Amino acid sequence: MITIEKALELVLLHSSKGVKTKEISLSDGLEYVLASDVCSEIDMPPFRQSAMDGYAVRIGETNRYKVIGEIQAGDNSTFLLNKGDAVRIFTGAPVPDTADAVMMQEKVNIEGDTVTIEAPLKIMMNIRPKGEQIKKGTIALPKGTSVKAAHIGFLTGLGITTLQVAEKPTIAVVVTGNELIQAGQELPFGKIYESNSAMLVATLKEFGYCNVQVISIKDDYGSTKKILATTIENFDVVIVTGGVSVGDYDFVGKALNAIGVDEIFHKVKQKPGKPLFFGKKEETAIFGLPGNPAAALTCFYVYVYPFLKKYEGAEDAHLLTISQPLLHHYTVIGGDRAQFLKAKIQGDGVGILGAQSSAMLSAFGTANALVFLPENSTELLKGEIVKTMLLPN
Amino acid sequence: MITIEKALELVLLHSSKGVKTKEISLSDGLEYVLASDVCSEIDMPPFRQSAMDGYAVRIGETNRYKVIGEIQAGDNSTFLLNKGDAVRIFTGAPVPDTADAVMMQEKVNIEGDTVTIEAPLKIMMNIRPKGEQIKKGTIALPKGTSVKAAHIGFLTGLGITTLQVAEKPTIAVVVTGNELIQAGQELPFGKIYESNSAMLVATLKEFGYCNVQVISIKDDYGSTKKILATTIENFDVVIVTGGVSVGDYDFVGKALNAIGVDEIFHKVKQKPGKPLFFGKKEETAIFGLPGNPAAALTCFYVYVYPFLKKYEGAEDAHLLTISQPLLHHYTVIGGDRAQFLKAKIQGDGVGILGAQSSAMLSAFGTANALVFLPENSTELLKGEIVKTMLLPN
Repeated sequence: MITIEKALELVLLHSSKGVKTKEISLSDGLEYVLASDVCSEIDMPPFRQSAMDGYAVRIGETNRYKVIGEIQAGDNSTFLLNKGDAVRIFTGAPVPDTADAVMMQEKVNIEGDTVTIEAPLKIMMNIRPKGEQIKKGTIALPKGTSVKAAHIGFLTGLGITTLQVAEKPTIAVVVTGNELIQAGQELPFGKIYESNSAMLVATLKEFGYCNVQVISIKDDYGSTKKILATTIENFDVVIVTGGVSVGDYDFVGKALNAIGVDEIFHKVKQKPGKPLFFGKKEETAIFGLPGNPAAALTCFYVYVYPFLKKYEGAEDAHLLTISQPLLHHYTVIGGDRAQFLKAKIQGDGVGILGAQSSAMLSAFGTANALVFLPENSTELLKGEIVKTMLLPN
Repeated sequence: MITIEKALELVLLHSSKGVKTKEISLSDGLEYVLASDVCSEIDMPPFRQSAMDGYAVRIGETNRYKVIGEIQAGDNSTFLLNKGDAVRIFTGAPVPDTADAVMMQEKVNIEGDTVTIEAPLKIMMNIRPKGEQIKKGTIALPKGTSVKAAHIGFLTGLGITTLQVAEKPTIAVVVTGNELIQAGQELPFGKIYESNSAMLVATLKEFGYCNVQVISIKDDYGSTKKILATTIENFDVVIVTGGVSVGDYDFVGKALNAIGVDEIFHKVKQKPGKPLFFGKKEETAIFGLPGNPAAALTCFYVYVYPFLKKYEGAEDAHLLTISQPLLHHYTVIGGDRAQFLKAKIQGDGVGILGAQSSAMLSAFGTANALVFLPENSTELLKGEIVKTMLLPN
């Protein structure tokens, strides 16, 4: 059994490949990863811009200025100011080259076409210099950026309408187990409703992976081998749940071996998720997640998500891990393995939830974080700082 | 000017209404809010279930047991065990009523049809009781839950296929300003590319609001009034950006007043976002966000998002706020108003980013959090604990 750190290192090591890129509309960019630097085609702001509603002035001898005109936002008119001249101006409007500063309207006194400035003027005051935010030709967002809403706003403001992004991997979710039947049917004795595929499809969707194929296999060596071979042939990433332990009817491991999948690792010293399998065949990555839903979801967040983001070339390929004080005393059970515990951040710290069983998904519904406890943890004191991985919300 | 706390209280107070509900497929449930409690129609697990691959035994006099059969996961067969009998069993398989415990296979020794148990047996060991996770007829998820991927997995496992959810509000984003032109066109002098609508549409999409109408208005009183009136008539929530300050050409406030919108508040003692407007006309809520992109986005996270979630009946209607130590000393500028500062959580704390200007969206691309500083903050020491609101990632 290898450590979590080693397992994650191996997963990331095997995730890089020369992914294909494509051009998409900027408005479709959420959750994609930039395949090349995006450079600005304009200076932003594109001209000296007023940051206030007020008066643009060319500084004169006294604090009295003659108003010679008006510039609204969007106007392309300009004025030649002499010393002691002012122009009525509005936020976002272009400031004439001959103006030194803009005084906000709250600090002036107006009489006819004369304005008295009632606060100290400073050169360039309330003027946003041309290119202050970004200069034409410089990098607005680097390759490897995971596109968020603020980026879309930022790039739209630079006049950009398309992006070059990494194509997302094609993903298949394979569920195994004779005990599984589909929700919506009657439940015969001995069976349970198959839920891992619904959970993984929804989790993938939360991260922007919307085209996921679900494939079911009965616990039968022949069909497991045949269907897995075809699936591995046709997808970039294959996520199998169940069938990776050592039970006599867990055919997945044997089938993967027979197909010629290279085992990168099998079993990680962690709880939950000990039976985790990771392998590759040519360019296809195969994850064997435990059949227990909560264990499968934990492995997804810790290993599969970073793999997928790295595959797309993302700079930062992990869920955010922060430090939080524990809200209560906690006695660790089974501390011989490192653990990921369903937890809830609230108030000034994090609390570990009850119902940690791998078979129970209910705690994951309440959780907004996973607390990581290293191997050989025993007693945790209230207030002790723990590593806490944030879950998508 | 009112405080942030008061403004938020008023926003939430005016967001409740009897929203319409609809039935959707569970697989489409992400980001919806449950309109009624979801009860389980089955016990989960539906039968006494083995938690291990091993042997189900009826405890006898010695540690030697006679293997009388085998039960795989998915089997509906059962056995009548006498004292001293064992049944080969696999994870997820139904444990016979006459068995007391399951011993994991790693801790037995097998010879022919006799199995020797090499570890202490405890009653109910490795047996998941019927209904341990949830009992038939009890609440699986309460009304007001915002549906996440783990919930979809959990409910699928209970055989549930549809949900009763709150209908999402219909949303219009209205952009104002003569200086704005659309990305993709040439940029004439004095104009800038309109980016607030793209930013807000993408932000709304991140939160699951995918049908958003964008409407542009020129800075002209007549058309502002006419278009706003029609928009307010036709949408549940209208988000206007720009035109809410006091400039001579900011027609939005005047138009809203003329249309008969009740002003709930206008201006909040905060930075950025001071000019924020919130009003209602009949059941339609109107947010007037500042025209500066970063200020508009801040107001969205702090006010509009909680409003939308509360409108849908969500139990917890805020972005998660946590406590974090500041990674560096920070001198507050303009501390007379409470502030939301773009920040990045990394390592063991949070750092406040440069480029806090309301006009600059670039810092929001880097940020994963907003640090909240109360009014009259002055110097912040390294290590000081600050309230930190997590942004969607």
